[in-house]
Parts: sequence; structure tokens; C-alpha cells
Amino acid sequence: MDVGIIGAGRIGKTHAEVLRRHATGLHVRAVAVRQLRRELAGWARDAGVACLTNDYHDLLRDPRIGAVLICTPGDSHARLIEEAADAGKHVFCEKPVSLSPQRVVDAMRAADRAGVVLQVGFQRRFDRNFRLMHDRIVAGGLGDVRTLKLTSRNIAPPPLSYLPGSGGIFLDMMVHDIDMARYLACSEVREVYAHGDVLTDPAIREAGDYDTAAAMLKFENGATALIDNCRQCSYGHDQRAEAFGSRGCLTADNERASTVSLHLDGHAEYAAPVGPFLPRYEQAYAAQFAAFAAACAGDAPVQADGFDGLQALRIGLAARQSAAENRPVALPTLTRGTV
Amino acid sequence: MDVGIIGAGRIGKTHAEVLRRHATGLHVRAVAVRQLRRELAGWARDAGVACLTNDYHDLLRDPRIGAVLICTPGDSHARLIEEAADAGKHVFCEKPVSLSPQRVVDAMRAADRAGVVLQVGFQRRFDRNFRLMHDRIVAGGLGDVRTLKLTSRNIAPPPLSYLPGSGGIFLDMMVHDIDMARYLACSEVREVYAHGDVLTDPAIREAGDYDTAAAMLKFENGATALIDNCRQCSYGHDQRAEAFGSRGCLTADNERASTVSLHLDGHAEYAAPVGPFLPRYEQAYAAQFAAFAAACAGDAPVQADGFDGLQALRIGLAARQSAAENRPVALPTLTRGTV
Amino acid sequence: MDVGIIGAGRIGKTHAEVLRRHATGLHVRAVAVRQLRRELAGWARDAGVACLTNDYHDLLRDPRIGAVLICTPGDSHARLIEEAADAGKHVFCEKPVSLSPQRVVDAMRAADRAGVVLQVGFQRRFDRNFRLMHDRIVAGGLGDVRTLKLTSRNIAPPPLSYLPGSGGIFLDMMVHDIDMARYLACSEVREVYAHGDVLTDPAIREAGDYDTAAAMLKFENGATALIDNCRQCSYGHDQRAEAFGSRGCLTADNERASTVSLHLDGHAEYAAPVGPFLPRYEQAYAAQFAAFAAACAGDAPVQADGFDGLQALRIGLAARQSAAENRPVALPTLTRGTV
Amino acid sequence: MDVGIIGAGRIGKTHAEVLRRHATGLHVRAVAVRQLRRELAGWARDAGVACLTNDYHDLLRDPRIGAVLICTPGDSHARLIEEAADAGKHVFCEKPVSLSPQRVVDAMRAADRAGVVLQVGFQRRFDRNFRLMHDRIVAGGLGDVRTLKLTSRNIAPPPLSYLPGSGGIFLDMMVHDIDMARYLACSEVREVYAHGDVLTDPAIREAGDYDTAAAMLKFENGATALIDNCRQCSYGHDQRAEAFGSRGCLTADNERASTVSLHLDGHAEYAAPVGPFLPRYEQAYAAQFAAFAAACAGDAPVQADGFDGLQALRIGLAARQSAAENRPVALPTLTRGTV
Repeated sequence: MDVGIIGAGRIGKTHAEVLRRHATGLHVRAVAVRQLRRELAGWARDAGVACLTNDYHDLLRDPRIGAVLICTPGDSHARLIEEAADAGKHVFCEKPVSLSPQRVVDAMRAADRAGVVLQVGFQRRFDRNFRLMHDRIVAGGLGDVRTLKLTSRNIAPPPLSYLPGSGGIFLDMMVHDIDMARYLACSEVREVYAHGDVLTDPAIREAGDYDTAAAMLKFENGATALIDNCRQCSYGHDQRAEAFGSRGCLTADNERASTVSLHLDGHAEYAAPVGPFLPRYEQAYAAQFAAFAAACAGDAPVQADGFDGLQALRIGLAARQSAAENRPVALPTLTRGTV
Repeated sequence: MDVGIIGAGRIGKTHAEVLRRHATGLHVRAVAVRQLRRELAGWARDAGVACLTNDYHDLLRDPRIGAVLICTPGDSHARLIEEAADAGKHVFCEKPVSLSPQRVVDAMRAADRAGVVLQVGFQRRFDRNFRLMHDRIVAGGLGDVRTLKLTSRNIAPPPLSYLPGSGGIFLDMMVHDIDMARYLACSEVREVYAHGDVLTDPAIREAGDYDTAAAMLKFENGATALIDNCRQCSYGHDQRAEAFGSRGCLTADNERASTVSLHLDGHAEYAAPVGPFLPRYEQAYAAQFAAFAAACAGDAPVQADGFDGLQALRIGLAARQSAAENRPVALPTLTRGTV
Repeated sequence: MDVGIIGAGRIGKTHAEVLRRHATGLHVRAVAVRQLRRELAGWARDAGVACLTNDYHDLLRDPRIGAVLICTPGDSHARLIEEAADAGKHVFCEKPVSLSPQRVVDAMRAADRAGVVLQVGFQRRFDRNFRLMHDRIVAGGLGDVRTLKLTSRNIAPPPLSYLPGSGGIFLDMMVHDIDMARYLACSEVREVYAHGDVLTDPAIREAGDYDTAAAMLKFENGATALIDNCRQCSYGHDQRAEAFGSRGCLTADNERASTVSLHLDGHAEYAAPVGPFLPRYEQAYAAQFAAFAAACAGDAPVQADGFDGLQALRIGLAARQSAAENRPVALPTLTRGTV
Repeated sequence: MDVGIIGAGRIGKTHAEVLRRHATGLHVRAVAVRQLRRELAGWARDAGVACLTNDYHDLLRDPRIGAVLICTPGDSHARLIEEAADAGKHVFCEKPVSLSPQRVVDAMRAADRAGVVLQVGFQRRFDRNFRLMHDRIVAGGLGDVRTLKLTSRNIAPPPLSYLPGSGGIFLDMMVHDIDMARYLACSEVREVYAHGDVLTDPAIREAGDYDTAAAMLKFENGATALIDNCRQCSYGHDQRAEAFGSRGCLTADNERASTVSLHLDGHAEYAAPVGPFLPRYEQAYAAQFAAFAAACAGDAPVQADGFDGLQALRIGLAARQSAAENRPVALPTLTRGTV
């Protein structure tokens, strides 16, 4: 299937390169950018992108393009989903679909009406380790899930200019752990308590955000998730998960750059985590797009859909509110069928 | 130094046996029990305890006995500390000193007045792994501590009859993780949010307790601790710690019953955690008593004193209240010097 | 650079697929096969190979083809190298170049005369783990290498029909460990003692081969290598290395299919080794071809050249003789410059 | 049972201290030394040894002493075993029983005649890891054993003055790995090929010994063992084993000083191996003596007897000869019943 990418920032470029390096069933026919700058032409040539345009409508009009990948800044996502759906294109959209739950619902409905696939960019669901945990839990190997522990620590914070539009640490960063918690708990969150602080750089506080955060999620099935995040981590890209259940416990450790150990006087050394997010999630991105291709072909259900995006957003908003007001925030029940 | 043990329940017997098996500088001269039952005589012979008495005053009166180990049910601890201190004996007391902060303060003051050592039974401070973490943090190897993760899962819950007097999971079980959090954060807790649930056996709810609990502790230095506990764990005695700081991260894994791996078709196996608490903490108990002996001899400061017991109690009480009222509970500042 | 592949057996197909999936700088323009069977046409279409021919001279004549990959049965390798070199093509040749040292020398001289690159298929040199060990040793991090341990165990033996032409376990399988030993010892072998046995299937003995083998290599710099091989391994594709030196020890463990651990009553489980050789060496193959492309472009020296192939062959032949005669076999000194 | 120790060198003292620290069923009544030096009196007081004598006949004559532990230099072992057996004492003897196989047989016969237990100091058989490997192999969990890998590297060589009487690296150090190989292969060695070299200190060559050695043992059941030894190891006391069989593979890693990992920029660290031999084998020594006590009481068979000592000696002598003559050395079959 030929696809178009809307947006050629960091993530749009990454996706084009991943699709070039991996056989996913998707081929990038065109990339739409805001401005046709010279360095983009060079990048497109290296990335094997044949067509660059500064009008994304070109992609929506092109009958050979079956799907679009929306990689623009977050505040344009919902509108672009609606336009793409109306044009009959399947849609893969980077998170967040919107910072407004209502707009997410609007986008979901547009996709439903048009009968197109809407998949959201929760690539960790396609990571071999987190997926194996999920599959084992779904198969019952863990019994009832009691406690989840999710840790994400990034190497360095994004540029300060990025923070104001990002929705903050809970919606920009923790949203991935929140989605993992739902993915592993196999249940919905009923209440959130969260805490945020600035421990690395006071400028982050001035930008209205936190750099370090923690949350406790309570699920309808009795499970509790403990999440901790930090935007700055001296030893690399650290993203781990643990699921404790009535029959056992699953842990997913980081991928490492090698399996080599070096034994020295006094201690032994092994490799640091693979990171940052690329190469860490290169294989997961490839699997994500292969799953999107399969969903568009009608061969498999969507594995991270608009409802997953909506729920992660609602929980993230509740966490942000909880941290601001220092109190637990309850979430009204919402089921996939009733949106 | 000759010591007497007051109480010969599970922990009193354990301590007598540990002192027999390890060279700590302490020798058990006598054990005081409530009732001189026949099986105790057999146990005492096997454990090398020369003297059994049903009157603990015998121990307090014996000039050859320099210290007592208080291993009775918790509600008698504070009073026994006071009596022992008045008799000029150094005191090692199992946690909790009391469920009343005021009574802990009373006991601390009695020990101070008498000029005797008061050490509280936080044996994890003497575990080789947790101690190594603490020492590295104190030495600055981790920079500023940002996030702590503490997990304790016991193999099976105690008898239901034990629960009502125990103070509940926050004061009976989580108190060890709370003390670890203070030990590793090198700071004091300013606020607690906690959650408890019953996921294993409804009878525990009827006994007024939880079997599964989680807490978020916020420290004065900006660190946050995430604690999760469960009274029942299918895969063994699981007690781990992680400390994330500005310069790195320390993790302490469980001790395992062997270093052997078995590689089979489809997977590889390694040994389960060592447990339950004995043998898991056998070496820690021995180190704890060696440190107590050194403190009584004036050779070293007390490493888990009455103030540590008081703070762990206050935090545990706040956690219990938080879980009951589903709101964060703040702790007024208290410093070692002002008690 | 456009390349042609001669031979479309297992390894020829693998290389075409690897070159399709990875950006190495090489593009497969044509594949020459012995017989144009129908299933090959289907495979070529799936693998993106535009041209299939049953005459390898077509490749040698094609001016757009800069290099050939020789993937035919071993006894044709030397002759094809000579023909390709005479045609001015760079050559990548699967091991063994020949089972006759003199023919390897002939092939090396043909490549030298023609001024083309000759690289031999020792893909483990491009495995991230073994390469890291090598680089650390070359950088001096291990001091003087004293002892090497190399283990290779394959999941299942090749078809019996393959064995007679393979040169036997020492030349077909152990040759990779022998090359690793030279790669890590940074020295030449002066003597070999080897042992072979049949422990899995008597038919292997009837085919004139062993299924289990061990060897001790003594190097000129004092290092000793212990190698053990087995053609059948119940728990997967097991290929590890250890290098012990005066300043420390390096170990390379297997790659595993996930980083997930499952903790159960009585033991914990982790993932089996990744295997068989594909996917185990997928990344190594890609790196091997990227290095070949760089060597052909004159950007880097050849990292596994004809001399490496010659030495591995000589040591393998000595090991085979040692096992047959049950005595150590010395190797006359041979240096890169004097061949 | 009360025991006497003959010899108060490093190993004699170690055993006295281990017996004091651990409940094994053995109590040290007396220690016989060559000369009653002052520092020995101090050591005996600290170690709780009530009686020191400079005449070992005192021990043999004392009816309260049921067994002796022979910890003198190796050349006196066989004679002392004979004298102790004649005196009706059970005997634990440090390895080697003798450097002469005939003298080992003499000692075995003396013990047989007297009906006393003779146990040899192969403490690795009582190490929790190696024992677990053995038990799993005996239980069939590994199928047929094909390949064993045994590695022993000591922190530092013994004093040069110790080497001449030690029998050399094969009899003094590798003998432990040789015994492990027999213990894990569950078969007898039929042929040995060995190699020794001096890589750390030329003075060791002048003392007539090697500091680095390797051996290949071929067993009657088809298994092969690869052993590598070094007297000097920069990263600690490294003693590991691997057993590969038709159904799987067992590995025993070193014990480590903690379970703590430290994650830093660029790599992670974990603890070095526990060593030297004490504390590494403290628990194994205690288990060894508990097993000796049980054997003396008739409660269990001897787990490392004279025949085990004899076979390890014969293999070690063959290895020494093989290294000297650079050829494989065959061992005539010897069975437990025919000695």
C-alpha cells in the first residue's frame, strides 16, 4: 500500500526512514511539509522519498495513496484525521490525537463514518518485550494482575520551546506508560493520583511543566499501577515494565547495546540501555506499521485505536489535574461501545 | 556481652538461633517466656539456651546480662523498654516500638535518661545489598536522589489471628519499606498518599486489614518513593529496591538460592528468590546484632534508633489514614534533636 | 554498487534477502543459478531480484555489476574467484575458499593481480558482540590474552547429504570458532589438538563426520583457545565467547528473543537464544556487506580477507588430522606478507 | 562428635574457624601443631580451641575424639591416615592424599581395615551450585552429558616456596576441576591431553611449575571436559562450571558480593565474584563437615572418598605427564571395587 506522510519533523522523518529500512507492506509515495526547504530535498533523496509537496491536499487527492501518517504538531491532528477520513484514506496518527477528549471523539466518529482505519502511535504495544508480557497476561499466565510498575526515563528533556504545546509531562511522556498500564492491566482506570516536580532545570518550571513525575492508577479490576517518569537520565533511555499477578510476575528489562560483560578488578560491566527512542523502538515502529498495513487490508483488528488514544488522554488529563490540585481524581466509566 | 531475650515467639526463637549460629559478640544467657511449656524446654536445649524463665524480671535483675532483646507482642514493647532502661540494660526492640507515637517518645526518653542504647529491629538496614545502596548514596555516587522504588511481597499472609494486633499492612509490613525509603532518600517524608485493597482472601478484609497496598512518599529533598506490597506472592519472597538519582541508578535484586541456570528448549531457568525472611535475612540479622553489640560497647553509633522507629511509625500511620480517607496526608516536620 | 550473486542455495538466497532488507550500499542486480527452476522465479520476485540467469558468465560480463557474491558449493569457490577477478569484479566468497590451501593461495593471487577486493564470509567478525570484544582487546583493555573459550552449538545437523562435501565438522562448523580465536587472540596458531566424536546420530559417523568436537589451539603469543562444538543442541543456537587476559575478562552471551523474565513458583524463566543463524546473524550479515562495500570503494581495509580464510583452513585441516591421529599437530609459521 | 585437627596452617585454621561458626555436628576439641608458637595460642583462644598440643599422638590417644582432620603438608597425609585409622579414628584428609597412587591405595586399605570413614577435601562437591548441577544431572535432567567446561582462576599464586611440594598446578589446583569433571560427568576419564605455560611470573617456571594450564579429558561415556586454570586473575576468584547434555545445559556462575547493579553513563556495574576461597567456599566447607559427621555416624555414604581422591590424583598425574611430553596420555580403567 502506498502511503503519504503529513509532517516532516523528527517523527515524520523517522517514520519515512523506518519504512524504507523495513519491509512493512507500506511504501512512502509522498511527504507533505509546511515549507519546501532545501535541506528537506536532500533528506528526501537520501530517504528514497520520490515526492515532496507543501500542500497536504495533494496526498489526500492522490488515488494511489491508501493511507496517511499524520506527524504534524499535535493541535492539528484531529482536523487532519477528519479531512483524511473524508478523503477515504486510512489514518495513522501520532499521539496525542488531541488534547481535547471531545475532539478525539470527533475524529473517531469521522473515521467510523468513512469506514477507514484509525490507528494511534503507541509504538510500545509493538515492542517485542511489552507485547510478550501482554500476550502472556491475556493468555492467563499471570492470573489476576495485582500491581504494575512502569518506569520511563528519557536521556534529555526536549527543547524548552517544545514544552508549552506538548500538554506537559503527563500528556507528552507519561501517556506512553499510561497506555502500557491499560495494555497490561486489561482493565480501565477508575482513579488517578499523580505528583510532578522540577528537579533538573528550573526553566522547565517556568515553561509550565514538570521534569519528574509519578502516578498511581487504580483499575476497575483491582490492579494498581505505579508509574515514574523523568525527562533526564544520566545512564540512558530507561523504559521498563513489571506486572505482578496471582500466579507470577513478569518483568521487561531494557534492550542493551551488546551482550558483552567486562570483568575487572572490583566489579563487572555490561552495556547501557539502547537509546534514545530510535534505535530503541526501531523494530517496534516497523511492527507498528506492519500491523497498520494489516488492519487497512482488513486482515487484523487495529491494535491501538482511537478509543485507546482517548482513554490515555483522559487518564493523562486526570493525572495533570491531580498533580495540580494534590488530590485523587476519579474517571467516569467509559466503554469502547458507548463513545 | 551476655543478653537476655524477652519473648520466645517466632522472632524471639529466630534471634536466639541466629545468635548461636553467628559470632556477633552477643551470647544469650537467658530467655523469658510467658509460660514454661514443655516444647520450649526442648527448643532451648537445641538452641543452646541455658536458662528459661517465666519472669522477665529475672533478666532485668541479672547483673551479668548487659542487654535485652524485646521480642514480645508489640503492645508491650514501650513498657518493657522503659523497665529495661530503668534497670540499666541496653535494649534491642523489635518493631514497632509502639503504635502510639507518644509512647515511642516516652521509650526513647527512658533510654536517654538511663544512658542505654535503644536499637529498633529494622534488619534490612543490615542487608548487604540495601546497605551497599545506602553507602553509595551517602558517598554521593548517585547525586541527588529523585525516585525510589521499593517492593515487598511475602510468600503468604500471617495467620488471621495475628492481623488485628499488628497495626495492619502499613504498620506491620510496609513499615520496613518506609524505613528503607528514609534510609535511601537521606531525607524526611513530608506527605504520604496510600492505597490498600484485598485481592487474595476476603477474610483479610473482615479482619480489618488489606493484603495489597501501595504508597507514594514525598520527601523534603524532592525525592519521591513508590512502594508496593503484597502479603501473598506465588514465586517467593520478593524484596527489591531501586534508587534513581541525578548521576545514576542503583538496583538491589533478590538473593537467589543458586547461581545455576538451566537452558532448555524454549527458555532458560534460574533460581527463585531466597525466602522466607529466614534465610533471606539471616546474614542481616547477624550483622544487626553485631552492630548492636558495637553500639552497646560505645564503638559505633546506633544505626536504627528510636527516632527511626518513631518516624517509620508516623509515616505508616499517615499511610493508613491516607488509604482510609483516600487523600494525601501531610506530616509535620520533626527532627532528631527536637523529640 | 550493483552486485551479482552466484548460487541460490540457502546462503545465496539469505544474502539476497539481507541485502534487500538492509541499507548496505549493495544492490543485487542479478542472481546466477545452475537451473532456472520455477520456484526460484517466485523467490526472485519476492526478493526483489530483477534478473535470474543460469549462466554466471552473464554476471561477469555485465559492466554495471561491480562485485560478485560467491555462494555456490565449496569446491567451485576458488575457480569462480579466479574468473571473477579476471573479469575485474570484486569478490565476496563464502567460506571455505577451498579445502586446498594451495587453491586458496591461487585465488588470493588472482585477486591481487586483478587489484580487486577478496573478502571471505566470516560474518561473526561483524556481530556486534564479538566485534566489541575484539575492539576492546585491540585497544588493550584486556592486557595480554591468556585463554579463549569459544562455544558453538547448532540447533540441528545439516542434511546427511551435505556432510561429505563439507570438509567435516572442523572445516564446516568449527572454522568459524577458529576464525574467532584468531580474531580475538590477535596472534597466529602454532599447534592444534582436537577431538571428535559421534554422540547424536550414528549415520553421521557413517557419513565420515563427527557431530561433537573439541579443540585446543596454542597461539604464538602464549594464548590458548578451547573450542567446543556440537551439531545438535536442544535449547537453541548457542554461540558464545570468552576472553581472559591479564587485565580482565570479556564474555559475549547469546542474543535472546526478549528481555522478559517470568517469575514462577520455584524458578524464573528467561528467553532462549535467538536462532538459527538467521535471525541470529542478520545484523552481522548486513554489517559484513556494508564493510565489503566500503572495502570495494577503497574506504576501508578488508576485514576478513583471503589470508584469514587460508589460516582458518590450515588450522581446521590440522584439527581434522589431530582428531584422526590423536596427537597434537604443529602449524608452520605463515605470515600475511609471505603468501 | 569431638574432633581433633592435625596441622594449623592456613587450611587447618580455616577449618577450625568454620567449625566454630557453623553448626555441623563437629566440635574441635584439640589442635595438634608442629611447634607451639605464641601467636598460635592467641589464635586458638580467639577460635575457641581449648587444647593445643605439639604432639598429634595426643589426639589419636584421646578416646573423646572420634575423628581427625588432617591438614598438614601433603607428603605426611597418607601416613597420618594410616596412624589415625589404626587408632580407630574417622579421617577427613585434605587433598591430595598423596602424590603416589600406591600410597593412596595403602591409606584407603588402612581405613577399610579399621572400618573408619575416610573423606577427602573436595569441598566443591558441597558448594550449593555445583551440587545442584550434579543432582540435576544424576536425576536425568540433562540427558547424556556431552561437554563439560570448568574454569578456575585464583586471585594470586601461592608463595613460590609452596610450589615445589605442591605437585604443581595440575595436582594442586586443577585437581579440583578434575574432581568436578568426574562429579558432573558421572563417568571415568580414559584419556587426558594437557598444556601448561608460564604467563604471569618467570619465577614460577624456575620453581618448576606453570601458572596457566588447560586440559581436555575424555570420559568413558563419550563426554569431554575442557578445563582452564590460571593462578592469577585480576578480577577475582573465578570458578565456574558448564555441563552440556542431550536435553539441555547447566551453568554455574560465581557467587557475587551483592545483588546490586549500578547504572551509569555508558555502562552498568555489578559486583565482583566473592573470593578468595574463604569466603567463597565457607558454606561449602560447613556442608562438607556436616556430611562428614553424617558419614561417621553411619547416616549417609561418604561423598568424596579415597577412591575419588585416587582417581583425581591419577588424572592429575596424567595431565602433568601430557603437558611435559605434549601427547595425550591414556588411563587404564580402574573401578571402585577393584582397588
